[in-house]
Amino acid sequence: MIKNKTSNSLRGAVPLSHLFLRERVRPGDRVVDATCGNGHDTLLLAQLVGPEGRVWAFDVQEEALTATRELLSGEGLSGRVELLRAGHERLAEFVREELRAVVFNLGFLPGGDREFVTRPEHTVAALEQAAGLILAGGIITVCIYTGHPGGPEEGEAVARWGAGLSPKRFNVWSSRQLNRPATAPYLVLVEKSG
Amino acid sequence: MIKNKTSNSLRGAVPLSHLFLRERVRPGDRVVDATCGNGHDTLLLAQLVGPEGRVWAFDVQEEALTATRELLSGEGLSGRVELLRAGHERLAEFVREELRAVVFNLGFLPGGDREFVTRPEHTVAALEQAAGLILAGGIITVCIYTGHPGGPEEGEAVARWGAGLSPKRFNVWSSRQLNRPATAPYLVLVEKSG
Repeated sequence: MIKNKTSNSLRGAVPLSHLFLRERVRPGDRVVDATCGNGHDTLLLAQLVGPEGRVWAFDVQEEALTATRELLSGEGLSGRVELLRAGHERLAEFVREELRAVVFNLGFLPGGDREFVTRPEHTVAALEQAAGLILAGGIITVCIYTGHPGGPEEGEAVARWGAGLSPKRFNVWSSRQLNRPATAPYLVLVEKSG
Repeated sequence: MIKNKTSNSLRGAVPLSHLFLRERVRPGDRVVDATCGNGHDTLLLAQLVGPEGRVWAFDVQEEALTATRELLSGEGLSGRVELLRAGHERLAEFVREELRAVVFNLGFLPGGDREFVTRPEHTVAALEQAAGLILAGGIITVCIYTGHPGGPEEGEAVARWGAGLSPKRFNVWSSRQLNRPATAPYLVLVEKSG
């Protein structure tokens, strides 16, 4: 179960993002998985928001939505999650509620078609919409991969966007691993301070 | 009460370090505040370890130990804390138990004599000792300040030390704020992965 697997280790950007999500997301919360991929983040979110909460999960690939649907179904959590076949740049079109968390896991679908990668202009548009929807005390987590073509540029676009957020309203952290190669995945965390 | 003040905001390296400490430190744990300063980290640690836990708090300045003693006394938590007038480079001389967390808050004592600053060679010696004492799943948090003479060099020494830790045994994160000046305090987090 993913809950135990990630709770005791900060080995990588995804476990670090999960630590922040566990700390912040509470039963009844509304949250978004902007890039559901194989569904691991969606599953964690569905567990954290509980039966009264709600998760919207976006992906452009049917393959990703199918994998996520199966994972949720196996855990009996399908009822809490709305799966949307749409790019995350359409976030605000589908979600109008205030959110406790929005999760981004950029790059390509692991094991999937590498032609489908998140794109900087879409990602920044989605981040901007996410920042407009999160509650005070809410967070946006962004796992960034630089090992594929366009990855470094996407990371730079996210950093520029984060650097431009008002320090009065947002706390923006970039976390990298000192004892891993510079190309290792890293995490950008945005908190709305209210 | 500091518990409430820091639990909902990641505005700064110290609140970020407190988030990790709250996530990791449990009642009954043994922990160290390597630089007690005005005692705010020591107080948090004393709260987290509970009546069965133990905190060792180091500082070279009597002024810092007095401030910390008063803060703990006001909260009725003095019994859980051993205050030591010694530099943190002597950590392993005073503490022989396995530790869940070791906290460093580098630089000078706020409001105190700026002649007394932590020094890179002492800090690295203390970090090395801390890494030898922490349990699997335990953490070292290091808040780093670069605004005083010697601060940037100390940050570089910590980064070099962290970069040299085995990625099989330690997860080492450096977290900086993207929407603050490059001189803003930042956090290095070390987790022993066991």
